Amino acid sequence: MCGIGDDCAILRLPSGHEALLTTDFSLEDVHFRRSWHPAETVGHRCLTRGLSDIAAMGGDPLAAFLSLALPADLPQSWVDGFFRGFLALARRFKVTLAGGDIAQSPGMTASPLTRGRRRALLRRTESTGKILADVMVLGSAPRGSAVLRSGACPGDDIFVTGSLGAASAVLHRLYRAPSQQTDFSTLPRTRLKAGDLKHYYPTPRVAVGRWLRERRLPSAMIDISDGLSSELSHICEESGTGAWVAAPAIPVAPGATFDEALHGGDEYELLFTVPASRHNRIPDRIAGVPIRWLGTITRKTGLWLVSADMKSRQPLERKGWEHFSG
Amino acid sequence: MCGIGDDCAILRLPSGHEALLTTDFSLEDVHFRRSWHPAETVGHRCLTRGLSDIAAMGGDPLAAFLSLALPADLPQSWVDGFFRGFLALARRFKVTLAGGDIAQSPGMTASPLTRGRRRALLRRTESTGKILADVMVLGSAPRGSAVLRSGACPGDDIFVTGSLGAASAVLHRLYRAPSQQTDFSTLPRTRLKAGDLKHYYPTPRVAVGRWLRERRLPSAMIDISDGLSSELSHICEESGTGAWVAAPAIPVAPGATFDEALHGGDEYELLFTVPASRHNRIPDRIAGVPIRWLGTITRKTGLWLVSADMKSRQPLERKGWEHFSG
Repeated sequence: MCGIGDDCAILRLPSGHEALLTTDFSLEDVHFRRSWHPAETVGHRCLTRGLSDIAAMGGDPLAAFLSLALPADLPQSWVDGFFRGFLALARRFKVTLAGGDIAQSPGMTASPLTRGRRRALLRRTESTGKILADVMVLGSAPRGSAVLRSGACPGDDIFVTGSLGAASAVLHRLYRAPSQQTDFSTLPRTRLKAGDLKHYYPTPRVAVGRWLRERRLPSAMIDISDGLSSELSHICEESGTGAWVAAPAIPVAPGATFDEALHGGDEYELLFTVPASRHNRIPDRIAGVPIRWLGTITRKTGLWLVSADMKSRQPLERKGWEHFSG
Repeated sequence: MCGIGDDCAILRLPSGHEALLTTDFSLEDVHFRRSWHPAETVGHRCLTRGLSDIAAMGGDPLAAFLSLALPADLPQSWVDGFFRGFLALARRFKVTLAGGDIAQSPGMTASPLTRGRRRALLRRTESTGKILADVMVLGSAPRGSAVLRSGACPGDDIFVTGSLGAASAVLHRLYRAPSQQTDFSTLPRTRLKAGDLKHYYPTPRVAVGRWLRERRLPSAMIDISDGLSSELSHICEESGTGAWVAAPAIPVAPGATFDEALHGGDEYELLFTVPASRHNRIPDRIAGVPIRWLGTITRKTGLWLVSADMKSRQPLERKGWEHFSG
């Protein structure tokens, strides 16, 4: 790759690959709160959203682009923290920060970006009270191999990575806490418990997505940014199918409720379907992450939750994840 | 291309091409004003910035991604106008609107985007008073052929497309006008004069950039988003050179001053350098756009403005373009 600081970034894709592109706007008080989330967490989470989209296609992330709009009174330390979180995650996934907004920032320095050949890509929006970050991630996959949402067929088995509900449980705890107890803006990462990490420093399942794509196992795949019920309905809508899910199969995270596991967002786990004939090729763990069978895709549309004894069923309501609007 | 509405857009580059990527944040009251610019103009200008970056590399634009943050009280008619302007320019350059922010917008419809297979990609930011648009453009160029800023060599001739200063002249007129005379929010395009079009509906010089790149003529190229003096200094800094410019050679647009031509931004003309041995291969017009010789790249750093008789010279001050902050 070359051309940083030029009119465009120039990126060479691996031979025979096609480009995967995703953009995500992260808005203060919608996707994060300054009092709830240390700046480092915000940087990490903003990039996680894009990496998770690449993971959901089974792609390899290559480069990220960051556009930031910052309120005038935001301390430089916040910006430094944001970049620490963003760049640490980028390094972990070998993703280059290849550019962003080329507008100059009057009176603002962005030390982490100026190191090496990187340039400051910040604009200070004097009149905007909220932080906005638009993150674009470029990835790639061998031509024709990217996993879509639309490929699920009746009879396919449904699987999910990791456990569900922990991120949502942290969020509900934050909502319930008296406001004077919810200033986590300086909370160090080392003080977070395992369940909390799921919310503050989620791990995009890039390695799992790639493993599955390399073996051409999934017929459809999506990441759980808006909750299991919501994402399963996306797969079914795009594939023209229905699904049933076995209630006892849902991997509820320790400390989370069944409802949080079923509808909670910001999980960044992968939900995927596999033809029944390849069911046995899905191991218990992929790249260290537990994989759980959940249910089956059906010809008839509609989502159903089936009881442990498989004798009763109820409609699985799709509850959209509204982030922090509640 | 496929995969719209999936986790990522999937884009296939022409065989042997590499990807060119650029993002530009357009912020209300920095890059446009709601009272000065009809919504259609804003949509057009937001996309122009990205297309012009692709043009400056000699690339072919392929796809655009749009993330929008809109204040709660913005009328739907404004959003419709924005998309009309954005999509009309996209169609003209055969650029697909391939995606954007995947967040759902509660209570907002975006009719132009929902047509066909496109999806509404809007989020309404209840608490942000300003409009923000982040536009990403993906282009491509045959491997190794994209024109950088850094390739200028001593002795190279400097050229510029079109004429300069018209966009800036319109802006200065807007600043001078009494505020009650500057509501152009509903100004129809048909009432704009030729000079005004340069400001309201600038044309990215994609065809010129491609023509030059195909013939491998330019050693360096940049678009004039921040003014001629500023962009020439970018080329010189990146190339480790200086330059002199013949004052009478500068193509001052009708109605513009010499200073506006020298320092005015938002022009979207191309500034490029060509080895002296290939000077004769540059025609008077490329793709219908007049091309003017401006001066020469020098070994010694520093920018100079040379008089008509080539006998006197003065330092060419680099004046950064601050958009509408003044």
